[in-house]
Amino acid sequence: MSTAANNLGPTSSVVALCGGVGGAKLALGLNRLIGDRLTVVVNTGDDFEHLGLHISPDIDTVMYTLSGLSDLERGWGRADETWNFMASLEQLGGAAWFRLGDRDLAMHIERTRAMRGGASLTDFTSSMARKLGISATILPMSDHRVETVVDTDDGQLPFQEYFVRLQCKPVLKHLTFRNAASAVATPAVLQSLRDPDLAAVIVCPSNPYLSIDPILAVPGIRDALDKIAAPIIAVSPLIAGQAVKGPTAKIMAELGVPADSISIARHYPFLSGLVLDEADRKDAGKIDLPTHVTQTLMKSVDDRDRLAAACLEFASALATKE
Amino acid sequence: MSTAANNLGPTSSVVALCGGVGGAKLALGLNRLIGDRLTVVVNTGDDFEHLGLHISPDIDTVMYTLSGLSDLERGWGRADETWNFMASLEQLGGAAWFRLGDRDLAMHIERTRAMRGGASLTDFTSSMARKLGISATILPMSDHRVETVVDTDDGQLPFQEYFVRLQCKPVLKHLTFRNAASAVATPAVLQSLRDPDLAAVIVCPSNPYLSIDPILAVPGIRDALDKIAAPIIAVSPLIAGQAVKGPTAKIMAELGVPADSISIARHYPFLSGLVLDEADRKDAGKIDLPTHVTQTLMKSVDDRDRLAAACLEFASALATKE
Repeated sequence: MSTAANNLGPTSSVVALCGGVGGAKLALGLNRLIGDRLTVVVNTGDDFEHLGLHISPDIDTVMYTLSGLSDLERGWGRADETWNFMASLEQLGGAAWFRLGDRDLAMHIERTRAMRGGASLTDFTSSMARKLGISATILPMSDHRVETVVDTDDGQLPFQEYFVRLQCKPVLKHLTFRNAASAVATPAVLQSLRDPDLAAVIVCPSNPYLSIDPILAVPGIRDALDKIAAPIIAVSPLIAGQAVKGPTAKIMAELGVPADSISIARHYPFLSGLVLDEADRKDAGKIDLPTHVTQTLMKSVDDRDRLAAACLEFASALATKE
Repeated sequence: MSTAANNLGPTSSVVALCGGVGGAKLALGLNRLIGDRLTVVVNTGDDFEHLGLHISPDIDTVMYTLSGLSDLERGWGRADETWNFMASLEQLGGAAWFRLGDRDLAMHIERTRAMRGGASLTDFTSSMARKLGISATILPMSDHRVETVVDTDDGQLPFQEYFVRLQCKPVLKHLTFRNAASAVATPAVLQSLRDPDLAAVIVCPSNPYLSIDPILAVPGIRDALDKIAAPIIAVSPLIAGQAVKGPTAKIMAELGVPADSISIARHYPFLSGLVLDEADRKDAGKIDLPTHVTQTLMKSVDDRDRLAAACLEFASALATKE
């Protein structure tokens, strides 16, 4: 593993684009390998105000995962969580469809307080990551509120209505990233992508439509990616046509796109290479890009380390070729 | 007990003026005896914004006490409480000096959300009391923010700084009820005090300086009390020169007032009678008012019922005399 990290060179940096659970697993592996040389740019299209609190689900998943606080069984939220706030909220007739654990709540309350006091989401996230002892830099994709809105056969739905309350059951027809046109990428995100020592950009195995596209919709980010000399690789979130978790395959079917890694490669036109699962080895030949075939399912922490190392090695090999 | 309640007449109403823990105990007894004929007007001078949340400590103590949710051991907050939010907040570097339990937090979040949405504190409290199945009407003393500020030998302190963070240690020199001059009593409070069927006003055994004086400072309330035909009685919060809980005796000493029930009687110039403890029977003759001597310490729920009944009977006897 240290080989992969050492291949980078002592000042080289890596940027990962990441959504929630699946992406955070790979970000953890990268964080373990290269620590403070890693910047994770996280989707905030899922952010919403709920109970008067600013909730940033993917940022929190990444922070909890990288700090070792996440619940590995549940896949979201914190370990050793309790739910007495929710029980009490239900008793008082409050909205209980979006579950907030007692420990998790501290993050939302601190974030809301800090942001009402004028802190940007970037500032707040940076401060919390430091408090939690995380080596990597975690950056929201934007400090503007870009909101993912889902057009479905049940009408237009705010993201969390679709994702949590309706559990992705409505048929997705189209996605809109509201306010994207008027948003701007933060100086921190642009700086990470323009770093002369940037060795690789890794698109984590997150949902391309719900988690990565919102990041790409922020003006300035796609443009910066197009100008990057370093390899940009993605890890396909599909294994044998299925996502490990979440509605990626269902959404692809609804959008009339074959649910395979060939489609993933096409989805990201800026890629230098694609990492795909052994189960999809047959697809490698049909992809018009360098590919790396490996086990992409991350069950253990070792799996996360191993896939992170494979990504760094693959990117390093692509850089050498260029 | 039903005698005391029946003495009232089927449509008679009673208003209690109340602070937190000590007062709420008597309010519980009254609620058990006369239910929806009781209106509790509660101090909100202790209210403050903390962590971006609107906290109303005395209102919550009264609501939790009357709904059976309060922690009888601790004296404040909810029973079966957990503290994982606080632990997590501390971990994130948040302000942990004011302890908010996981269950309790739901009330503050709902209140903050409702009030940001335009609800008055009166509306919100009424809605929560109904949700919690409380028979009595619970009213904040005002919908305006009247804030108790404590002048001490350590300077001027916001109430919760003095009360919770510094545990009432600084020597109190003067109290200010900030914004009282520009506040107004709510229609609901004035209506309760002007009810033609009002049979008694009971000043609960709360801290006269910190809990009752803020209520009396709200323009309109003192005036309404002065015009009331029904008896106004107080229960002395002192037993043998000591408060059951809290800094009443300490504050009286600091203000140069003897810490006895004679001073309590003088403190409320509008009283028709005073209820004092058996330990202070010797003071009864020195008080220029009708007195009723009984056991005022409320350890059990029976004690609460018994003292509530004694208050109603005493008021009823005073009304007959008038």
